[in-house]
Amino acid sequence: MGDKDLRVGLIGAGRMGADHALRLEKRISGVRLAAVADPDLGRAEGVAEASGARAVADPLEIIGDSAVDALVIASPGAVHEPLLLAAIDNDVPVLCEKPLTPDAKSSLRVVEAEEARGKRLVQVGFMRRFDAEYAELKRLLDSGDLGSPLMLHCAHRNAATPPGFTSEMMIYDSVVHEFDTARWLLDSEISAVSVRAPRSSSAAPEGLLDPQMVTIETARGALVDVEIFVNCGFGYQVRCEAVGERGTALIGADGGPLVHREGRWGGTITEDFRDRFGAAFDREFQRWADAARRGEVDRTAASTWDGYAAAAACEAGVRAQAGDGRSEVDLVERPAFYGRT
Amino acid sequence: MGDKDLRVGLIGAGRMGADHALRLEKRISGVRLAAVADPDLGRAEGVAEASGARAVADPLEIIGDSAVDALVIASPGAVHEPLLLAAIDNDVPVLCEKPLTPDAKSSLRVVEAEEARGKRLVQVGFMRRFDAEYAELKRLLDSGDLGSPLMLHCAHRNAATPPGFTSEMMIYDSVVHEFDTARWLLDSEISAVSVRAPRSSSAAPEGLLDPQMVTIETARGALVDVEIFVNCGFGYQVRCEAVGERGTALIGADGGPLVHREGRWGGTITEDFRDRFGAAFDREFQRWADAARRGEVDRTAASTWDGYAAAAACEAGVRAQAGDGRSEVDLVERPAFYGRT
Amino acid sequence: MGDKDLRVGLIGAGRMGADHALRLEKRISGVRLAAVADPDLGRAEGVAEASGARAVADPLEIIGDSAVDALVIASPGAVHEPLLLAAIDNDVPVLCEKPLTPDAKSSLRVVEAEEARGKRLVQVGFMRRFDAEYAELKRLLDSGDLGSPLMLHCAHRNAATPPGFTSEMMIYDSVVHEFDTARWLLDSEISAVSVRAPRSSSAAPEGLLDPQMVTIETARGALVDVEIFVNCGFGYQVRCEAVGERGTALIGADGGPLVHREGRWGGTITEDFRDRFGAAFDREFQRWADAARRGEVDRTAASTWDGYAAAAACEAGVRAQAGDGRSEVDLVERPAFYGRT
Amino acid sequence: MGDKDLRVGLIGAGRMGADHALRLEKRISGVRLAAVADPDLGRAEGVAEASGARAVADPLEIIGDSAVDALVIASPGAVHEPLLLAAIDNDVPVLCEKPLTPDAKSSLRVVEAEEARGKRLVQVGFMRRFDAEYAELKRLLDSGDLGSPLMLHCAHRNAATPPGFTSEMMIYDSVVHEFDTARWLLDSEISAVSVRAPRSSSAAPEGLLDPQMVTIETARGALVDVEIFVNCGFGYQVRCEAVGERGTALIGADGGPLVHREGRWGGTITEDFRDRFGAAFDREFQRWADAARRGEVDRTAASTWDGYAAAAACEAGVRAQAGDGRSEVDLVERPAFYGRT
Repeated sequence: MGDKDLRVGLIGAGRMGADHALRLEKRISGVRLAAVADPDLGRAEGVAEASGARAVADPLEIIGDSAVDALVIASPGAVHEPLLLAAIDNDVPVLCEKPLTPDAKSSLRVVEAEEARGKRLVQVGFMRRFDAEYAELKRLLDSGDLGSPLMLHCAHRNAATPPGFTSEMMIYDSVVHEFDTARWLLDSEISAVSVRAPRSSSAAPEGLLDPQMVTIETARGALVDVEIFVNCGFGYQVRCEAVGERGTALIGADGGPLVHREGRWGGTITEDFRDRFGAAFDREFQRWADAARRGEVDRTAASTWDGYAAAAACEAGVRAQAGDGRSEVDLVERPAFYGRT
Repeated sequence: MGDKDLRVGLIGAGRMGADHALRLEKRISGVRLAAVADPDLGRAEGVAEASGARAVADPLEIIGDSAVDALVIASPGAVHEPLLLAAIDNDVPVLCEKPLTPDAKSSLRVVEAEEARGKRLVQVGFMRRFDAEYAELKRLLDSGDLGSPLMLHCAHRNAATPPGFTSEMMIYDSVVHEFDTARWLLDSEISAVSVRAPRSSSAAPEGLLDPQMVTIETARGALVDVEIFVNCGFGYQVRCEAVGERGTALIGADGGPLVHREGRWGGTITEDFRDRFGAAFDREFQRWADAARRGEVDRTAASTWDGYAAAAACEAGVRAQAGDGRSEVDLVERPAFYGRT
Repeated sequence: MGDKDLRVGLIGAGRMGADHALRLEKRISGVRLAAVADPDLGRAEGVAEASGARAVADPLEIIGDSAVDALVIASPGAVHEPLLLAAIDNDVPVLCEKPLTPDAKSSLRVVEAEEARGKRLVQVGFMRRFDAEYAELKRLLDSGDLGSPLMLHCAHRNAATPPGFTSEMMIYDSVVHEFDTARWLLDSEISAVSVRAPRSSSAAPEGLLDPQMVTIETARGALVDVEIFVNCGFGYQVRCEAVGERGTALIGADGGPLVHREGRWGGTITEDFRDRFGAAFDREFQRWADAARRGEVDRTAASTWDGYAAAAACEAGVRAQAGDGRSEVDLVERPAFYGRT
Repeated sequence: MGDKDLRVGLIGAGRMGADHALRLEKRISGVRLAAVADPDLGRAEGVAEASGARAVADPLEIIGDSAVDALVIASPGAVHEPLLLAAIDNDVPVLCEKPLTPDAKSSLRVVEAEEARGKRLVQVGFMRRFDAEYAELKRLLDSGDLGSPLMLHCAHRNAATPPGFTSEMMIYDSVVHEFDTARWLLDSEISAVSVRAPRSSSAAPEGLLDPQMVTIETARGALVDVEIFVNCGFGYQVRCEAVGERGTALIGADGGPLVHREGRWGGTITEDFRDRFGAAFDREFQRWADAARRGEVDRTAASTWDGYAAAAACEAGVRAQAGDGRSEVDLVERPAFYGRT
């Protein structure tokens, strides 16, 4: 397989990029890190060094490079659009970390460019679709064993936020995962988003509305409630309970060794999303690379359309936060090119 | 203790009344069933027979009876008001099944009568306050170990509804328990109630909005979400997760033997509220009777005021169902007579 | 019911006796504490006082007393035999705390006396038979859903031992409960007992073999392993997993609120057997009293024969500890008088 | 990394070999399947085809082949010895599926050959050491948080056995995993093995003693009990509870979505060891390959010595089955060459 390895160019050598470089080199097969781009050239070199990859400052240099078969974009969302358009233009498969772009309008331009090209090239990094528990929940819902799904109850908790984290980022960076999983699990577009907040935790930084309760309405009449609590103090926790007409299924329950000690039973909580979703990232990357080598896209992964729909839901969420609590989501008509949800 | 037994008059000999008769006779101590009243005299006699109690058709006959020390009211809510007013008038301790009365206005008249009498006589049958799990959750919240409470996530599910069950009854008969537990656990009045429903389950009778999502706002800024699903098909389930500033606590998880058989692990679900809350009813009755024999009321139990506040929340819930989804709760000022929540 | 209350004489006013006095007075119905006997008369008076019961030093005084309908024996096992023989002689129903007597030979004398009397009068206080979880496990095994039972895996752990606790007491006071539950759940006599110990815990007092692994063989060919660990440090825990030909069932899993806090999920462990089995004691006493008032015995409770069989198993266990690790249990033939196990 | 891929020769193209071929090609990185050997040449060709690997009938052809950097042995244990000796002779790193060889005597010859060569080359495929749960348990025990370990309680269950499965194979093929995990978790050699069996399940084939209870004693005085039940009917289940001086830890509890449906809560049980330990196999192979490419061995994996010690424990287990129930394990003195357990 050595001579057929997919040569990947990585754009963005920050924390997420460095993590993905490690993933490409050490944890998945059939892939080779060929180039790393970062405006901070030293940072690009640091990530590229171990694998002998080329390091550049300008990402556009590697998008058209014939020695690069595919791209992973892990730079900030604000700079994604031109990179994606260039990749589409060059016929290069892309795994783009979420968000596709920061707003629905620019996401739609990427949708249109891909559709115009007539070939699916872009995958958005909603890694939960590759998590073993979420995949099993999806399988259960699709099997019909629980009856038609009516509601999801979600909780999404982080121990603490980095400096500068805002109420809007709780929607754009965190709840965006629930937007995608809701659409994917329920196989239906989001029609409206509501946001309500209790009094904020005294552990939250001044000015941050934390926690918040987000309610999602889908076109098929399902309801999803999401607790987003990014300064819960005790660890990272993502939970989802699906309620169907005939039964319920819960994922995200606590695992690990069950310990009895000092008057207490229980276990430890994962610290962050890399512990919780590390294996999902690996599987996502492996399946993306396998598809890319065959000249295909992974149809279970999130498409450009999914990235656009998530961006539109985020915008509605932020409008709901700022306004009277509820905002409708307006999507353009879904192009046949993208098939069903 | 025999000669000091509390002689109880039971009003209402339907399913609930018969169950309470059994409880009074067989499962708690220091109590004797002295009289049973039901407009259907045969039914009263049937329940009274085993214990040699007196059976009458008119409840007012036993309220003033010197051979009756205390009353249990298990008749329909619509007839509670005159019975309660008569009991207060006669200085008789009452354990009144919920609702206190069917609406806030009539409940307030009972509040005013009791306050005018200057003596606490009425307890409302919110039995969850006596459930071991709820009591432990209350203790945890009051201990401060979880930090100040910000949210409750509740689920309240029944296998199926009897004929004639309406969307309003989902609020008045079912969510009313969450109204009381929210007030009690969070030590705060309810300020507003919102109701939203996904598409109804195909298992729900024609015309019933089932499930519904009820959101409760409290005066102290906490948020409570309640899934009420009365045709979930699989059994009776009541769950509550409290989210505090520093931690969470969940009650209502599944119990019973953990069985492995035929490719599956798990256990059985309780069939109805009598299985789930039978021990809570016993404890409620025992503590009520113990207090009544001492001429006191159990301060942890629900008072007339609590019954009034629950009725007001129910009214707001039904307004929210019918209207634009959210309705505020207007309470009169709380009389000092009733102390804190 | 007041005038028909069962008038109970309590023998033994130590910690266990005082606990049972409270149970008789406060937690069960149809019963009245009529007399308390303890060689330490002051202690008897202390326990008797609250209920206005008679206090005496000599237990034989209350066994023949016409004002005492039934007896609870909670004195040390070494003095049980004459009390039981006197009660049988006087036709008085007895609930005798375990052990029936300290050795098989004396237990057999009680068996013979009761059989000679021709009437079942004695119940032995193996309260686990009344625990909701054990009862459900028994029901499951009897239902055949798991197939024929082949093995039980048991763990029995205490936080720490009181001063003077010996390796033999681990068999006589602790494992004796597993001897009875094994016989009861598996419906078969014990044929042999083996004992093996790993190196002792450094937390165990000098000279105590703690923990130990006890293996029980039954006449029907089932195997039971018991971990007995009386200085486990973390709390009180009793667990039993039944393995049948088609499935398994586990009881004794951890309960209580599920808490997430400070990087950990879990809950608290009960501190001692009164927390864990308090409700079982209540149910045991209630059913014993109900049967006694009807002049019957509760056939699901442990009989004199069960007390004898447990004593014989304890003796075999202590022989196994002292000798080469395994000892057979020799029982006399079971009298038809005692029916099946 | 492409040009530095480890070229692996696979010996044995049966079910296990085919599974490992897939693993080498698709699920781990830095590895290339270079050759496949199987006496059934057609079977070797079938497995080799997809990756363009060379297929041969005689394994010795690929052991000395300069185009093969490392070997995976997945042929029957009876033929392992000459292959291992040839690999050691040729300085080729080997991942050998368990057992190392079928008996302690031949295993010792491999130990001696490797020691004589003066270089660690052989790893034995005890994949549980790479399972996330076992690894976490090992970490916990080594941390000292539970105090010094005193006991392990293990259960190892299979749904059903293939035709021809014998009581001895329950030790050699199944309990052998517990022998290795006990040695590894407790960091101590096995000093004796006892075997006892209840009556056999009616679901077990004629002549098979199933289930069995195996007790392991270690040199440091710990006790391990193992339920091995290979026709339990309901699925594949491996569980281990460690009991330390200050606490316990359990792994192997049930996972997957928690489903509520049709009066039951719970989930599904994995069907076989490939579901349960697939990720462990992947991790084992990846770490073995990574070490081999660096010219090293993975010191956490099982060594030739570990394979020898397991073989000796298996022999003791089979002697115990056949004889009086207990058999001591005699090991030669551990060569310094193999370091600590």
